[in-house]
Amino acid sequence: MGAENGQKSLSERIEMPEIPMEVAREFALLEQRFIRAETDRLRRSTVENRPLWEKRSEIISKVQDDFWVRVLSHAPAEIDEYIQHSDAAVLGSALKDLTVERFEVDEKGNGEPRSLRFTFVFRTGEENPFFENEKLVKEFYWRKKITKTPKGKRRTWEGLVSEPVRINWKEGMDLTKGLLDAACDLAEAEKKGGDRKKLPEFEKLAEKMEELEAAAMEDNDEDEEDFPTPAGTSFFGFFGYRGNVVSAEESKEANKEDDERFERALKGEKFDDEEDDDDEEDDEEDSFDEIEIFPDGEDLAIALAEDLWPNAHKYYGQSFEIGDDYSEFDEDEPEDEEDEEDNSRPRKKAKV
Amino acid sequence: MGAENGQKSLSERIEMPEIPMEVAREFALLEQRFIRAETDRLRRSTVENRPLWEKRSEIISKVQDDFWVRVLSHAPAEIDEYIQHSDAAVLGSALKDLTVERFEVDEKGNGEPRSLRFTFVFRTGEENPFFENEKLVKEFYWRKKITKTPKGKRRTWEGLVSEPVRINWKEGMDLTKGLLDAACDLAEAEKKGGDRKKLPEFEKLAEKMEELEAAAMEDNDEDEEDFPTPAGTSFFGFFGYRGNVVSAEESKEANKEDDERFERALKGEKFDDEEDDDDEEDDEEDSFDEIEIFPDGEDLAIALAEDLWPNAHKYYGQSFEIGDDYSEFDEDEPEDEEDEEDNSRPRKKAKV
Repeated sequence: MGAENGQKSLSERIEMPEIPMEVAREFALLEQRFIRAETDRLRRSTVENRPLWEKRSEIISKVQDDFWVRVLSHAPAEIDEYIQHSDAAVLGSALKDLTVERFEVDEKGNGEPRSLRFTFVFRTGEENPFFENEKLVKEFYWRKKITKTPKGKRRTWEGLVSEPVRINWKEGMDLTKGLLDAACDLAEAEKKGGDRKKLPEFEKLAEKMEELEAAAMEDNDEDEEDFPTPAGTSFFGFFGYRGNVVSAEESKEANKEDDERFERALKGEKFDDEEDDDDEEDDEEDSFDEIEIFPDGEDLAIALAEDLWPNAHKYYGQSFEIGDDYSEFDEDEPEDEEDEEDNSRPRKKAKV
Repeated sequence: MGAENGQKSLSERIEMPEIPMEVAREFALLEQRFIRAETDRLRRSTVENRPLWEKRSEIISKVQDDFWVRVLSHAPAEIDEYIQHSDAAVLGSALKDLTVERFEVDEKGNGEPRSLRFTFVFRTGEENPFFENEKLVKEFYWRKKITKTPKGKRRTWEGLVSEPVRINWKEGMDLTKGLLDAACDLAEAEKKGGDRKKLPEFEKLAEKMEELEAAAMEDNDEDEEDFPTPAGTSFFGFFGYRGNVVSAEESKEANKEDDERFERALKGEKFDDEEDDDDEEDDEEDSFDEIEIFPDGEDLAIALAEDLWPNAHKYYGQSFEIGDDYSEFDEDEPEDEEDEEDNSRPRKKAKV
């Protein structure tokens, strides 16, 4: 249309084949400044909000019996997709409480605000036929790692790392079908030292993963193609998430190096050893992928911490609204599910 | 599954038919505290970020010629859906610059941080065959309004309000097909006083809206059912958005009343005159809907301010990545479109 008027169209104007190097460098430094400012604000808001979260927990305790059940049954799609029907049955009958803490921030507002601790509290004894644990505590540490690429460029990785948390399943109840145990066994064996790939636990986990993947493929041949996650991927696999392998010490060193570099860049120094996006293709595959039983663990942790947790009281309120406001979440529901449902309940809860 | 084990399932536990009144009240007050804390933080971050936005504008000026074109062609889906092919042709050839300001926040951090000003700068003369305006400035004010429901309950409305901004289209170029002019005519006539519904401009706008709606219905009968917005709804209709009618004075009074009430509630006072969600059905329709030519104006303003603007330098960077990372945005593209495209460009830009 523009061309008809002698004007350049939007894509005709996009002629530059590459981002100008100097502009890319300046934007990257600016983005660092934004991230650092935002992280400082998260530190401050973590401290500011604590009295409000405490107040909320106090209110929740008055309706403890069904608060988290209602919240989970109205979880946003990016969380709901990880909760299988069997997970929902367990959470629905056994979950008593959930807290999320940015536990590395102290009362003065110092510390890494992106690290997260999830504490799930469960009913015990006969009230929980699934597992023995009264509490499952899953901690995620925000860590940084600096490595060299094969071409000698500097690569920075940042993200959440964690350790597998074992669940003491009761006989025949393991929803992860042995996968979580295998991940925990490997992590424990690794702590005793030695090359991971030579450990028998490594081989065992790999076999378990293949076995369950094959079973999932088979299940998916049925009429469940819209189902978002493969059968065999239980929500409880979340407790097995590891992420990259970065020690606290290594991360501290990387942060120190990065902070110094940032200060020098602010003063105008230019570095030519940073990895480009173009270099990515030369990478060897991330070595931690092959032992990851819940690859979306970081995404789910962030969705729980930034959406489900802060908005829990709103999801709870919504759970009392009768109507089909939640019909969009039903799309992934198998159709043969609503048999024993009371129709006066919001449709979203059909599966739990 | 739970039931088989003698346990209550998730939905069996959800037995309470209504949210306990006291709990609802406490959560509502707590939510007020969260919103007020968050708004204070937005005030502070607005001031803190200003030097960073200035620095970014300085960098953008070095690649001014195609910066915003690249950004818009990689806009997220919730913005992209409002940009028709004809809009993209205009923006692509005529847009020079865009700024978003939280203009009611002063340098000391006082003022309403949710109010927004969008300044679109365009090429002029022969470089812009579409309209005469060099600048289009669209301001949105965050306002509050307290009214009584038919049942005498207290209803609080909060949101963005704006006034229509006229575009001086060149002959035959009006993408809104007269709709924006009609909205501006009505707003101007209203300022001279009198009952809106008795103004001839009201009748004219209503006719125009019906006419375009009918035309859109007809267009949609073709094979474009996946197309997200009806034909005739141009992005430039955004400049006609009004929202609720709330004067600055009225909003100030409402805020004062609400602040006092909030303080009293914090001290433990209980109010029984707040509107319930259940009361909503008794409402007369919001009177501003029938003259709204761009009903999603508030959503689009917020998406532009909270996503496109702060992430513009990232979208710009992404526009240089070759590959089909953006293929998910192509789903709404008519298929007959890629004829004159250079295949080395990211697919997302097919339409512009």
